[in-house]
Amino acid sequence: MPPRRCNHPLNPASYSDDSETDDYDDEEEELNCTMRCISCEEDYDPDDAGTCKECYEEANEIEEEYKREIEELKAKVNFLKLSYPVEPNGHSNPYALTHTDVVLIPYGDSSSGSVHAHKAILVSRSPVFKAMLENDMEESRSGIIKIDDVSYDALSAFVNYLYTAETCLDDQMAFDLLVLAEKYEVKHLKAFCEKFLISGLNLDKAIANYAFAHQHNAKQLQDSALALIIDNMDRFTRCEEYADLKDTNPRVVVEIFEAYLAKQVNTASPLKL
Amino acid sequence: MPPRRCNHPLNPASYSDDSETDDYDDEEEELNCTMRCISCEEDYDPDDAGTCKECYEEANEIEEEYKREIEELKAKVNFLKLSYPVEPNGHSNPYALTHTDVVLIPYGDSSSGSVHAHKAILVSRSPVFKAMLENDMEESRSGIIKIDDVSYDALSAFVNYLYTAETCLDDQMAFDLLVLAEKYEVKHLKAFCEKFLISGLNLDKAIANYAFAHQHNAKQLQDSALALIIDNMDRFTRCEEYADLKDTNPRVVVEIFEAYLAKQVNTASPLKL
Repeated sequence: MPPRRCNHPLNPASYSDDSETDDYDDEEEELNCTMRCISCEEDYDPDDAGTCKECYEEANEIEEEYKREIEELKAKVNFLKLSYPVEPNGHSNPYALTHTDVVLIPYGDSSSGSVHAHKAILVSRSPVFKAMLENDMEESRSGIIKIDDVSYDALSAFVNYLYTAETCLDDQMAFDLLVLAEKYEVKHLKAFCEKFLISGLNLDKAIANYAFAHQHNAKQLQDSALALIIDNMDRFTRCEEYADLKDTNPRVVVEIFEAYLAKQVNTASPLKL
Repeated sequence: MPPRRCNHPLNPASYSDDSETDDYDDEEEELNCTMRCISCEEDYDPDDAGTCKECYEEANEIEEEYKREIEELKAKVNFLKLSYPVEPNGHSNPYALTHTDVVLIPYGDSSSGSVHAHKAILVSRSPVFKAMLENDMEESRSGIIKIDDVSYDALSAFVNYLYTAETCLDDQMAFDLLVLAEKYEVKHLKAFCEKFLISGLNLDKAIANYAFAHQHNAKQLQDSALALIIDNMDRFTRCEEYADLKDTNPRVVVEIFEAYLAKQVNTASPLKL
């Protein structure tokens, strides 16, 4: 593509609308201008002009500042996170974790072991553990916390997250960890699981996710799933999950219809009402 | 200031250098263009053009992504940092800090108390504490760590930083914490103190900072102080601190002169050599 050129008056007189444009012909060499984007280095038309040089340079400085701040925050995260040693089989290694003073037992999973931890960490991450371990309760005295209806793998991932703020998720693990995060009031983990589930949402998963989010007070996920469902109401009412949901939880179905109706009313043009 | 306008050929024929510029006169209305910066909304001259619209929009999206990443990292830092309760008088409150299993005693400061902490935190933040507390050493058995030549205030701020990655600094506290960070290999705190001292550097402080940095292996601070000194060698050799340093640490003075000479040689023009 040939470079786009435009003539522009360097002569201050030309700022006035009364300027003599005839003068340009004699000064063509001087008046020609090419605008080349400093960023992508492509020539551009004045209609596609973005910013002046000063704003470009300022934006560049701001970007550098953001990058520095990100690096500093990442270093802070690395400093603050605690290592929670996990063996190659995914099980925690109590021998590598020194000075532990509490054991968490997955009560619903008789097949595997327990998860060792430090009271100080559990207390700092969860108001529920704090109340449990700083008062004269059975768990505080015995140093044993039994947790119902949870697999060893989910409990281990949960405790690991309390140490590191990191975990690997698939849908099932995100559901399991969101339940634990809700129960023990670990907001950061709950938001992390919701974000993961929202990023993988599609219409096939929307009903299950909506019902789950409804049950566990996961507002962000609930809103995202609901938006997807009411955008596809016809398909929704024809799928198998809909029939199941109508049987098991008709109140949830009513809520979805109410949201659908509210959207219809809000988006209808005044003439049609 | 009147808007700056330039004529530009919308006619594709004008891309060629042979185009007839006479045509523009008849099409003035159509050909006029005003370039207004999308960011500051000021009109600008083509010579001051920055980026095209596409790059501006892309840069905006990247900026939004950086902002989101910063927010997420800040939330992660808040989740990971542990509270270390400090009373209004600046002293730690062992009763508010539950499940502690180690006490740090400032051996050089007989006036005040001790600092309570958790072995698990000290071990995770410092390789020196890790070696001390995970092996069969006196400190590991007794749960008491005596630290020489440190004030209670510095030790308390040091332990607080291990929990929170935060502290309030003045020059003296930055020196004290840098010494502890060096001794216990807490790199994050050492970098934090160096950055603080560098930000407040001036010629009056440069010699003391250089000598201190030299002694405690603080490379960033040492380089910054040295650069300031050799830019002002004449003033440096006339100040009181110079005379003291020559007496107490002549090797450091020699190093400064060597750096000065190296700079002279490097910046001299080839003709003068």
